[in-house]
This record gives sequence, C-alpha cells and structure tokens, in this order.
Amino acid sequence: MSTPLRVGLAGLGTVGAGVAKVLIDDARALEARVGRALQLTAVSARSKKDRGVDLSGVAFEQNPVALAERGDVDVVVELVGGEEGAARSLVESALRNKKHVVTANKALLAHHGLALAGLAEQNGLALKFEAAVAGGIPIVKALRESLVAYPVTAVRGILNGTCNFILTQMESTGRSFGDVLTEAQKLGYAEADPTLDVGGGDTAHKLTLLASLAFGVAPDYAGMSVTGIQHISPDDIKFAREFGYRIKLLGVARKTDKGVEQYVQPAMVRAGTPLADVDSSFNAVVAHAGEAGAFFFEGRGAGRGPTTSAVIADILDVARGEAFAPAFGRPAKTLHKAKALPHEERVSAFYLRFHVLDVPGVMAEISRHLAGENISIESMLQRGRAPGEPVAIVMITHEASQIAVERALRTIAASDKVFEAPCMIPMETV
Amino acid sequence: MSTPLRVGLAGLGTVGAGVAKVLIDDARALEARVGRALQLTAVSARSKKDRGVDLSGVAFEQNPVALAERGDVDVVVELVGGEEGAARSLVESALRNKKHVVTANKALLAHHGLALAGLAEQNGLALKFEAAVAGGIPIVKALRESLVAYPVTAVRGILNGTCNFILTQMESTGRSFGDVLTEAQKLGYAEADPTLDVGGGDTAHKLTLLASLAFGVAPDYAGMSVTGIQHISPDDIKFAREFGYRIKLLGVARKTDKGVEQYVQPAMVRAGTPLADVDSSFNAVVAHAGEAGAFFFEGRGAGRGPTTSAVIADILDVARGEAFAPAFGRPAKTLHKAKALPHEERVSAFYLRFHVLDVPGVMAEISRHLAGENISIESMLQRGRAPGEPVAIVMITHEASQIAVERALRTIAASDKVFEAPCMIPMETV
Repeated sequence: MSTPLRVGLAGLGTVGAGVAKVLIDDARALEARVGRALQLTAVSARSKKDRGVDLSGVAFEQNPVALAERGDVDVVVELVGGEEGAARSLVESALRNKKHVVTANKALLAHHGLALAGLAEQNGLALKFEAAVAGGIPIVKALRESLVAYPVTAVRGILNGTCNFILTQMESTGRSFGDVLTEAQKLGYAEADPTLDVGGGDTAHKLTLLASLAFGVAPDYAGMSVTGIQHISPDDIKFAREFGYRIKLLGVARKTDKGVEQYVQPAMVRAGTPLADVDSSFNAVVAHAGEAGAFFFEGRGAGRGPTTSAVIADILDVARGEAFAPAFGRPAKTLHKAKALPHEERVSAFYLRFHVLDVPGVMAEISRHLAGENISIESMLQRGRAPGEPVAIVMITHEASQIAVERALRTIAASDKVFEAPCMIPMETV
Repeated sequence: MSTPLRVGLAGLGTVGAGVAKVLIDDARALEARVGRALQLTAVSARSKKDRGVDLSGVAFEQNPVALAERGDVDVVVELVGGEEGAARSLVESALRNKKHVVTANKALLAHHGLALAGLAEQNGLALKFEAAVAGGIPIVKALRESLVAYPVTAVRGILNGTCNFILTQMESTGRSFGDVLTEAQKLGYAEADPTLDVGGGDTAHKLTLLASLAFGVAPDYAGMSVTGIQHISPDDIKFAREFGYRIKLLGVARKTDKGVEQYVQPAMVRAGTPLADVDSSFNAVVAHAGEAGAFFFEGRGAGRGPTTSAVIADILDVARGEAFAPAFGRPAKTLHKAKALPHEERVSAFYLRFHVLDVPGVMAEISRHLAGENISIESMLQRGRAPGEPVAIVMITHEASQIAVERALRTIAASDKVFEAPCMIPMETV
C-alpha cells in the first residue's frame, strides 16, 4: 500500500470547509479512486470557529504560510485568495519546501503563473488550479489533457457568474445595471466592492489561464484588453433581443498565424448558439480544437459545491502522481509571451448605439462618418420619433475593422447632436 | 530523460490513420506535453495501402493480435472494433503481455469491461477508452477524474450521431424515418446495416460505460432497456414541437436510494434545456454531480478528428503514467452489479399518440382506460376532424407510473377503433 497523501488546507471559508468535509467524510471513497489514503493533517484559518466539520486531530495554524513548513504536509491547498500577500507567500514557500500545490487562486496565477509553474517544475511538483477557472467545469483539465491532438485555435467563455447573473436579471426585469447590482449585493451574489467582477478583471484572470493552456503561451494578464458591463443599458439588451442576440460578458482568446488576440468585452451573442443560452450564474466555455471541432462545457462557475468539486479533483490528481506535470500543460520554459494580434487585424461586425437629438440631418451625419471609414450598415433601428428630443439610434454594421469603427465613433461623439459616448459592442456569431 | 513510450496501433481506417498522422507529424509537441517521446513502432491493418501518412520505419503486422506480442510495443491502441474476435483477443493478449491498452471499442467494453478492467489492474496496466463514448468530448475523463467529490446521481446523453442526424433531418424536412435513413446511408452518415445505431444498441454500449464510471457499478449492458428510433413518425416530431419539446434518442442512467435505472429510449426533451438544442451529428452529455450541480458537455461524437483527439489524449495519459489507474475510476473488484430500480418506481410524464377512427365515443373510451389506471392528462391535441376516417390524437399525461401507462395502452390497443400500436414517449424535463 502506498503512503497517504497528507493535505494542508489554508482557508476555511465556504469552499475550504467544503473541501475539509469531503476529505474527512468521504475518505474511503476517495481512497478507492486513487489507491492511497488522503489525510487532512493541518488547516489554517483566521479563527477556530466551528465550520460544521469535525477537525479534531487536525493541526491548526494561525499563519497559512506555516503550512508550507510542516513536515506532515505533502500538498498545500491554497484557498486564501489574492494575487499577493499570504497566498503568494504560501504558494512560493510550499513549492520551495517540496510540497505540491492545489489552488483556486486565479489572480495569483494570472499575475505570477509562469514563475510559479517554473518553480513547481524545477522541484518536480504539481501545481494544479482547476478551481481557478469556471468553478466545477473541468475545463483546465480538458485543455491540459484532453484537447491535445490538434492545436486549439480559440477559446470563448462566460467566466464570471456575477456578471452573467446581472445581465440575465437586467434582461428579465428591464432594470438598470445599477439597480440590479444593488440587489445582487443584498442577496450576496455580488461583492461589496464589485469592481473586479463587473469591470471584467476576474474574467480576464481566468481567460489568461485558459489562453496559456490552450495555446502554449505564457500567462499574460497585462496584455489583455478588458471592458466590463457597467455601461450596458437595458436599451442595449432590448435591442439585442430584437436583432436576435443576447449580450454576454465574454472572455475571448483567438490564435491566428499573425498572433494571439485576448480580450474581455460584452459581446452580442447570436441566439441559438450555445453561449447565448447560458443564464444566471452559470459559466460556460467553447473551445475550438482544430480537426476535433468545437466543444462546449457548461456548469456552475462558483460556490461551495462546484469549487470543492474542482479542488478535490486536483487533490486526487496529485495523489495519483505524475512523473511530469507542467501546470499549464507544457514545460514552463517553452511558454513564451504571445505575439499580440495587430490591432488593425481585429475585424468584427458591431452593434452601435447613439443617443442623438432627433433633428433633420443627424442620421445623414452619422452615416457619412461611418461611410468615411468604410463601415457599412447591415440593419438599423430607431424606435419612435421625438422631434427635437433625444432618441436612441442603433445599428449593426457589416464586418469592419475595429480601429476604423473606433475612429468613426470618436468623430461622431464630437457632434453637438450626439449626447453621450456611443456604445459599441462586437457581434460574436460562432 | 525518460524512455519513449512505444505505440502499436491496430486498425488503420479513418481514425487509425488520423492517430498515426498525429503521432508522427506532431511528435515534438506531444513529447513536450508528457516529458517523454512517443514512438509509433508497429501497425496492423488489412492491407499496406497508402493512408496519407509516412509509415516507413514502422513495423507492419497482418494479424493485429501479433502487436500484443511484440517486444517493441508498450501500449496497444485497438481500433479494430467489434465485441469479440480480433479486438477482444488483441486486448486480452496485450494486457496479459503487460502492455497498456487504449481502445475506442464501446461494444467490447460494454460486454467485457469488468473482466478486462480486472485484468489490467492485476497487471498494473492502464486500460483507457475516452474515444469509446461521445467521440472527442472528454466525458470519460470528466467522470473518472473530475466529478469525483460528490456522488453523480444521473447521466443523460445524446450518444449516437447517426440517430441525432436522422431525427434532426426528419424535423427539418418533415420526411419519414425510412426516407431520411436511406439518404443518410447514401451520404455515408449511416451504416449499410444501421441496426446498431438506430435500434439504440450503440447508445446502450456507451451508456453502459458512463453508468459504470458515474456510479461505481459494473458495466451491465444486458440489464439495460433499449428502444430505438424506428417507430418515430414525422407527426410525433411535429406534435412535440407544438408542445414545446423535441424528440431525442437519450441514454439515461439514474441512481436513487432504491437502485439504478438505465435505459435508451426516444424522449421528449423540453425546448430550452441543453439537450434539446443538440443538432445534427453532435453528441452531448449532462451529468448531475450532487452539490457540484449539473454539467453539460457537447461536441462531435464521431469522425476522424474528434475520435483521434480522444485516442491521443488517452495515449498521453498512459505516457504520463499513473501508479494506480482503474479503468472505470474505481478498483474493478469494487464494481458490483447495480440493483435495478424496480420497474414500478419508474414514473414520468408521457407523450401518447393514438391513431384512431374518428367516431363518437373514441375519446371517451381512451380517457376511460387512462383514468382507470389513474393516469391524468395534462394537454391534448387533435388536429382537424375527419368523421369516419383515421385521425391522430396526441396527449401529454401528468406524471404516471410507466407500468400503469403500458397497461392502459395495451387495453386501448385492443379496441377496434384504434389502428396501430399507440406510441408512448417519456418526457424529460431536466
């Protein structure tokens, strides 16, 4: 019989308590899967309060970093969170002390993933992070181990449950972003400081990891273009529906011969495509794997059950043991920074919304500026007329260069007949 | 540097040639993923004809079973097919000769999976079969390694691309099963003998493997109830749509406290649920993983690219090596035959279609027999009237015991006002 795998668990919040409970209550079932026992030997948390799980016989450390130095820990599970501070110290220290690491920390890996992966490999250790992306959906493992025969060319995902919940609620109730956010905060679905979620940063963290796994490039959070959902209006959502689309906050990573494109942006997703139907706090990912075709994965992206599921799967992977387990699927030293796809290569159809004064000539002016940038219009909608009053004009362009559209919008925004910055949302048709 | 993993490949059809090509053309990329080289050392096929891949330097065996005895083979890839014959001999012989096995052979494993898994474990070998279920979708790995923290309670899947293609075509063209099948055969989407596909047997093979992985039970193909799609009429598909459903051939495995239910059957799938939107030859699986929630996976279920992708993933898993790798996720000796859920426990709403003579009293007669079995009707549709002529009456019941419905239908079928055996399709609402 193999020796047990001894687990040190840092962080006993909702997920940490869930992980502890499964490790303790289902020890036999887990052991049957990996052929060795799993022992929770030490935990670290802010306090010793009751978590609904019997931790007698488990050592307690006030300071999470102390777990990295314990002789009775083989794998450190980091559920502390945050890209610096205790989480980073703990993970670095654990790897230096020859302990495997399982973490749910997307921010830490998006910023320091390459260095940490290198450190793990030098020491022959596993660094696993299934729970960092899309909760319980096994997309990290799928990209690392399953979609490997053909180069992955694109990954698109709905990776932040809070944003998807807010957009779904805005659609079903017609209420504003601010109203729905306030309610989501009251219900505990959004953080007191929601910036990381609604601003797109959390999605960008996760996309950074997916792009690295998919394309074999270095995680490059800094190189990503990120737009959140704060500027989306109920009107945009209503118009989207009329055009046969839904607005979703997408993380998109695409690889072409010319480079890699990575961005987080609200997008118009065509109704009937899989990502359009992802509602509420669910997460989903579409991965295009060359000749193997496109694969779609959907499930709960956060919360105790889904995240615990991902953490436990990683711990079992560590228990099974692999001689060679690069964190991002390929050796860290081979992960080079992706060449960014030149900005002028970014081509898409766009939804455009203008708030204009309803006076003769305003459409002519907008049309002239768009035509001047070679942007042609596929369809247009102006709801009602209100001579002399502000009115919304929305349109969908044919495929156009994004920089040309941005230039045209800057010119149009300068007009005294245009009230607020025009809204521009790319159309995702796959 | 580790020693190379030497691959012996049996079967050079579409998929076999795809696997050979990836192994040879992308050797460097694969090696980077697993830290050791992969070498295709020997192949077996009916003839030496050109497969579009350079096999010079690769040994050729006429008899696939000879691969199992070669000293220069560490893993045998079995793409011969069939539940007995050469495929079975090859796999058994390979495992006895201490060679790992990767196979795409669902029939072989559905019938002999338990014995083969035991043989692999006794010899400390891997037996991998990602390509046997749902082509490129990594559902075998997901159930074996990812959805492991909480007991999986149900798996539902669209697992046969031919059936889903036929049903999708019947829906879009209004043509009959026979017409569409003939066309599918001409296009090469259906076999000359389509029985295994359209009769549900292929789906049952795959479901057998998923149920074993999901619930930790022995693969039990014989214990499965299987109904194909041959009796589905364009009318049924049209009526389904009017009720807000689509007809899909589902494999369903559910586990309750009372036992395991496994069946393959055309089902009414509610529009808007993920399985309803799976079109053409795509496959999809929904797995309910307790507190982790439901996960949905969709992708191409057959063909060169998707199947090659799954086979290569398995070969890489073997190359990485695991000390302990039970084929069905748990030791073979712990996989007991599932207690079948008692038939009387099977409860569902049902779609019922009757072809009756349009005369006074026929509805009263049908209603009386249903009421006599405590079956109440949620909605009913009779399109047009044709006094004295045959006419279709369709209805959807409230939840009812399946045996009660079967009893009522037998009584109704005996009436001289009823023309053909009534059609009964369960409603899947999740």
